Amino acid sequence: MAQIGIIGGGTWGIALASLVHENGHQVTVWSAFEKDARYLRENRVQKNLPDLILPADMEFTADMETALKDKDLVVTVVPSIYIRETAGKMAPFVRDGQIVVNASKGIEAETLDLLSEILEEELPNADIAVLSGPSHAEEVSRSLPTTCVAGAKSRKTAEYIQSIFMSPVFRVYTSSDITGIEIGGALKNVIALAAGIADGLGYGDNTKAALITRGISEISRLGVTMGGKLETFGGLTGIGDLIVTCASMHSRNRRAGILIGKGYSMEEAMVEVKMVVEGVYSAKAGLALAKKYEISMPIITAVNEVLFDGRPAGEAVQDLMLRDRTVESPAIGWE
Amino acid sequence: MAQIGIIGGGTWGIALASLVHENGHQVTVWSAFEKDARYLRENRVQKNLPDLILPADMEFTADMETALKDKDLVVTVVPSIYIRETAGKMAPFVRDGQIVVNASKGIEAETLDLLSEILEEELPNADIAVLSGPSHAEEVSRSLPTTCVAGAKSRKTAEYIQSIFMSPVFRVYTSSDITGIEIGGALKNVIALAAGIADGLGYGDNTKAALITRGISEISRLGVTMGGKLETFGGLTGIGDLIVTCASMHSRNRRAGILIGKGYSMEEAMVEVKMVVEGVYSAKAGLALAKKYEISMPIITAVNEVLFDGRPAGEAVQDLMLRDRTVESPAIGWE
Repeated sequence: MAQIGIIGGGTWGIALASLVHENGHQVTVWSAFEKDARYLRENRVQKNLPDLILPADMEFTADMETALKDKDLVVTVVPSIYIRETAGKMAPFVRDGQIVVNASKGIEAETLDLLSEILEEELPNADIAVLSGPSHAEEVSRSLPTTCVAGAKSRKTAEYIQSIFMSPVFRVYTSSDITGIEIGGALKNVIALAAGIADGLGYGDNTKAALITRGISEISRLGVTMGGKLETFGGLTGIGDLIVTCASMHSRNRRAGILIGKGYSMEEAMVEVKMVVEGVYSAKAGLALAKKYEISMPIITAVNEVLFDGRPAGEAVQDLMLRDRTVESPAIGWE
Repeated sequence: MAQIGIIGGGTWGIALASLVHENGHQVTVWSAFEKDARYLRENRVQKNLPDLILPADMEFTADMETALKDKDLVVTVVPSIYIRETAGKMAPFVRDGQIVVNASKGIEAETLDLLSEILEEELPNADIAVLSGPSHAEEVSRSLPTTCVAGAKSRKTAEYIQSIFMSPVFRVYTSSDITGIEIGGALKNVIALAAGIADGLGYGDNTKAALITRGISEISRLGVTMGGKLETFGGLTGIGDLIVTCASMHSRNRRAGILIGKGYSMEEAMVEVKMVVEGVYSAKAGLALAKKYEISMPIITAVNEVLFDGRPAGEAVQDLMLRDRTVESPAIGWE
C-alpha cells in the first residue's frame, strides 16, 4: 500500500483518488479552500460526480503539509492557471526526489511554459512526471474501461506510476516523452473548438475527421520541433485524447465551438456556455508557439482569426480547403 | 476538361462521378449490369443518394469498352470481392500507361493481396494509383467539406489525380505511400467492429478512443512491416478514416459490433444488419497477416475470438485491459 496525495479536489482529482483507493492505496485529497475540503469530508461525494461515494478512510484537507507529508506519490490536478501558485504552496513540503505526477493540461499564457516546466521551476528537487490520455473523469468514476500514459524521466518512475494506477478498468502505458504528452494535451482544445465550429456550420463527419487528423498533424509538427516524439502524437495522449474531446458533448470547448459556428461571437459563446473555455486561451498560446518556432499551423491560425478577428467561420473553412495543394506528409516523398 | 471513366455505379462511384463532373470533366460511369446502367440513365439518380440529381451529359453504360475508351483517368470503385473479376474485364481495353485510381478498400481473402496489388497483376501495363480518406459518400454528394489522399508511384500522377478531384469542398493531398494507404483502409473495419462491440457493452468514449488509438497502433505495426510509412497511419487514410467509420451510425461494421456487444452471435448480427459486414472478412485477413508477418495485434486477435470462437466480448475486453504492462511506443525509450 502506498501513501498518495492528490492536490486538487475537482472531478478529475476525485476520480483519480477513487481509482487509486480502489487499488488499495491510502489517499489524501487537498482542496484550495477549507470549505471544499469540509464538504468532501462531511458528504463523501463530489458535487459533479454525485454517483461516486467516497470511502470513509479517504482524507480531505486544505492543509498542504498534511497533503504532502510522507507521501510516496503526489498528483497535481488543479486548473492550469493555478498550477504555479499551487506549486509555490507545495514547495516547502516537497522532499528531495518526491515523485509529482501532473494530471492537468495547459500552457501558461505569459511564459508559454508547459505545466511540467512550471513544476520543474517551482519544485526543482522533485521528480516531475505526467499522467494523460483519453479519460473523461465521469467515465473513470463509473469504472468504464480507460487507458492513459504515465510519462517520466526514468523508466523506474514511469513503471512505479503505472503500478499505482493500473487496474482492470484503467490500463496504463509508460513513456519517456513528457514534452510530447504535454503539448498534445495542451493544444487539443483548440482543435476541439474547430471541430465544434464545423458542427455548428452544419458540416458532417468527413469535415470533423479532417480537422482532427490535420489538427494533430500540425500539433505534431510543432511538438516535434519542441522536442516531442512523433509517435506520441499518434498515441493515446495525442490523437486519442483529441478524439475523446471532439466526440463528447461534455466538452465545453466543443459546445462553445458549435455556438460560434452558428454565428455567435466568441464572447457570446463564452457567456452561453457559462464557463471559461480553455481552448480560447490555448488558441492564443498555440499561435504564439507557431510563431516562435516558425511552424505552419493553418487550423490553429484560422481558429484565432475566427475567435479574435471576427472572421466568419465559413470563410475560414473555405480558405483551409483551398490552400496550396500539398503532399500529406512532407517526410514521405518520391524517390 | 478530362475524360473520366468511373468503374462502379454504387454510392461512392456516383458521388465521385458527380464531384469530377462538377469540376468540369466529362464522365462515363460503368455498371456491371445493363439494368443498373439503364436505371441511372433514365432516372438520373442513384437509389441510395436520392437527393443528388445526375447531370444530363453524364454517360452510363454496362459496356466496358465504352467506359474505358480514350479516358484520361479511370477510377475503380466496385466491392472488393469483385475487383479481380472487374479488372479482368477491363484488361483488353486498358492502354499502356493508363492511370487507374482505385477507390475501393479491402484485402482479397485467399491471397491476402491488397486491391492495388490485384490491379497490378491484372492490368500490368497501367499506372495504378489510389484515392482514400475519411469520406462518407453521402456527405460528399451533399458537398460537405471532405479531404482525401491521392497515392501514386510518381509525383506527376499523384498531382494529376489531385488536379482532377480537388474542389472548394474536396481537398486532395498527395502521397507516394500506396501500400500504407491501402492497409489502413482495408483494416479499419475490424477496429470499427471492435468500437461497436464496446458501445454495445455499454462502455464510453474513453474505451472507444482507446480502441481507435491502439487499433491504429497495431495496424501501423503491421503496415510498416509490409512496407507502409508510419506517417500514413497517422494521416487521413489511417486514423482519419478510422475516426469517421467509428463515429458513424451509417457504418454497418459499427452497427453489427453493437449487436455483438449486446450478446448477438456474429451470424445473428449479420442477419439483423441485413448485409455483408466487411469487417468480419477483414478480421480474418488481418489475423492471417499478423501471423504471416509475426506482428502482435491484440485487438484484431480479440475480435477474431469474439466473432469466430464465441468468446464473450466483455471477457475479451478484460483481457485487453490486463495484458502485460508495457510502454506506449517501443520506438521511444529511456536513454
